[in-house]
Amino acid sequence: MVKKKAQPKKPKAKSKEQETPKQVAKKLEGIGQEMVKDITKLKDPEFRTQLRGRSNVMFDEKKGTLALGDKTTTRNFLNIGHARKFMQTTMVAAKTRDYLNHNKTASIREIYYELKHTVPNSKENTFDGQTESDSVIVDLEHSVDTIREKLNLHANPKGTLYGDITLKDKMHNNDKFNCLKLGRGGWSVMSRLEPEEIEIVKVNAKYVLVIETEAMYERLVEEQFARKNKCILVSTGGQAARGTRRLIHRLNQQEKLPVLVFTDGDPYGWYIYSVIKQGSMALAAHSDYLASPEAKYIGMTLDDVETYELQNVTEKMKDGDIKRAKEMLEYPWFQNKEWQRQLKKALKEKIRIEQQALANKSLEFVAKEYLPRKIKDEDFLP
Amino acid sequence: MVKKKAQPKKPKAKSKEQETPKQVAKKLEGIGQEMVKDITKLKDPEFRTQLRGRSNVMFDEKKGTLALGDKTTTRNFLNIGHARKFMQTTMVAAKTRDYLNHNKTASIREIYYELKHTVPNSKENTFDGQTESDSVIVDLEHSVDTIREKLNLHANPKGTLYGDITLKDKMHNNDKFNCLKLGRGGWSVMSRLEPEEIEIVKVNAKYVLVIETEAMYERLVEEQFARKNKCILVSTGGQAARGTRRLIHRLNQQEKLPVLVFTDGDPYGWYIYSVIKQGSMALAAHSDYLASPEAKYIGMTLDDVETYELQNVTEKMKDGDIKRAKEMLEYPWFQNKEWQRQLKKALKEKIRIEQQALANKSLEFVAKEYLPRKIKDEDFLP
Repeated sequence: MVKKKAQPKKPKAKSKEQETPKQVAKKLEGIGQEMVKDITKLKDPEFRTQLRGRSNVMFDEKKGTLALGDKTTTRNFLNIGHARKFMQTTMVAAKTRDYLNHNKTASIREIYYELKHTVPNSKENTFDGQTESDSVIVDLEHSVDTIREKLNLHANPKGTLYGDITLKDKMHNNDKFNCLKLGRGGWSVMSRLEPEEIEIVKVNAKYVLVIETEAMYERLVEEQFARKNKCILVSTGGQAARGTRRLIHRLNQQEKLPVLVFTDGDPYGWYIYSVIKQGSMALAAHSDYLASPEAKYIGMTLDDVETYELQNVTEKMKDGDIKRAKEMLEYPWFQNKEWQRQLKKALKEKIRIEQQALANKSLEFVAKEYLPRKIKDEDFLP
Repeated sequence: MVKKKAQPKKPKAKSKEQETPKQVAKKLEGIGQEMVKDITKLKDPEFRTQLRGRSNVMFDEKKGTLALGDKTTTRNFLNIGHARKFMQTTMVAAKTRDYLNHNKTASIREIYYELKHTVPNSKENTFDGQTESDSVIVDLEHSVDTIREKLNLHANPKGTLYGDITLKDKMHNNDKFNCLKLGRGGWSVMSRLEPEEIEIVKVNAKYVLVIETEAMYERLVEEQFARKNKCILVSTGGQAARGTRRLIHRLNQQEKLPVLVFTDGDPYGWYIYSVIKQGSMALAAHSDYLASPEAKYIGMTLDDVETYELQNVTEKMKDGDIKRAKEMLEYPWFQNKEWQRQLKKALKEKIRIEQQALANKSLEFVAKEYLPRKIKDEDFLP
């Protein structure tokens, strides 16, 4: 893991984010044309992508997000160890270009099934499992410097949006709908939320509150928290799905709304926060699309246990949480005194506190006292 | 597990389903008043509930759903083995009555936290974990013959609704919204969907298609399947949450819409179907609220593998699936030749086939051929 300032070499985030399907398809075609050139020159065709893994992940302090370094890796058709992956990569590139040209999208499971077959006159399958196609998709994302969503691929959707925000779906009859007017259920966040498809028409809110658990989301809806505090609620249902992270990113970067993240008070919850804010190591190259570097953490903290006398409703930290806390202590993006203190406190006390434990005060406490007081005092972690 | 015809003794489904919060609160008060009577007579106060577990679960062939038998069990305050649970039950009864009277709802995790405290002058906690409060909630549901949703309690929400159906949320500004006009995202189904709160204003559809995976749901939305086939789509995201089952039940029983269930072709998917149709053993007493006995199964089946030449995209059945298939062979509600044949075929071939494997034909295949042909031929499993 390298810790250094990023070199601004790549095109700016804004232009990448606004690439149209046509432009992305062009890039994919570019890969194919290079290969054809090589072949006609009787040269070994080559495919180049960024090296991933911790050795090439760095923390871009200026942007406040994770990023990939400059190391690349190549794959050659005539290298017997590369040939299979080479074939898989060209298959996925050709298929996603088709999707883009025909306005189709597919889940990463579908493209796996769509491309899987036995190579004629052999017993060899094109793909032997989804991990093979997934890995090739990641290669391709890095090779054309985009995200899978712009290749018209997606993972499963998860997450709910609620509040005074009007969206327009340009691919669905130009539907325009306000997410404060869908009853208490809210809008089911899609797996892909690209600006050229889903337009944020209007937001009438002072900030975005991102919530880890659906039950706490339902609590805040019941307490009319969004209306009374003029904010947008986004529930993630655990680790945020890519579509939900893209939505939060757009509200933060495009709409310039402050983002406050509210999770359980345990290393897993804090990690959910850091993925929303700085990005993840696995997707370090995609922070420009997915991260919300100005996000702040509102709770739960272990200090809350003392401040609000919640000693009776803490739980023991699990082994996985302890391991995660130790790892997080070392991450460059947790090198500030507030998080170091919090993580060390967790490792010392070995307790965790859930969002819903605030119900021990009263059901309304979270909406009437806990959140408003933290917001008034700007009592956030960085 | 008893297999017999149910005795129609309890009040009819319809009246139970339409009970108002006031009526349910009255029933809870009734329990308290009985106890007070006993105490003033110096009698040992008693709490009666239905016996659960397989020995009291039966399959009601007339209704086509699971049901509980007549066995009951009592708990006495002066029995030292019962005293703790007795106290917990009265706490939950009193608190849910409060919710009902003050128009509040709570998740089952919140009520646990809300009621958890150390009994004064002791080291005894009221509850030592959520399993304790969950179990008391179930007792109470059975004792007053209702579902937790009518005690204003809920579990986590999950599931999405899409199609030409207009809902009204009477507890949220009387919002009226059509679920075909929310872009491709759809409406996030709430954890509680009681008729006195969420009104189904209008449905313009010939049937309801329930889908196991979110990715298949997104596929069918992209293919405009709902519009072209005049149907409602409900995605469950795996095993259906209670709110989603309640929604399907209401569409089936109240709106008289046929329900077709579309899952992966494996014992887990078939079990998801059976829970939607006949109910589950754990919630046998609640089938009148949650089951959709007229539901039919549209796929995937292992016959599809041959019909559509999908041999190349099957997967091996896991051990858990094999165990489940063996259990299902014995369930009274799987005693028909179609399911017996299907389950035996699965145990013989030991393969499974996913919904998304249909992408092997083409992305559009499921929407343009597979589902329309099955519907035209009424090629369903019972």
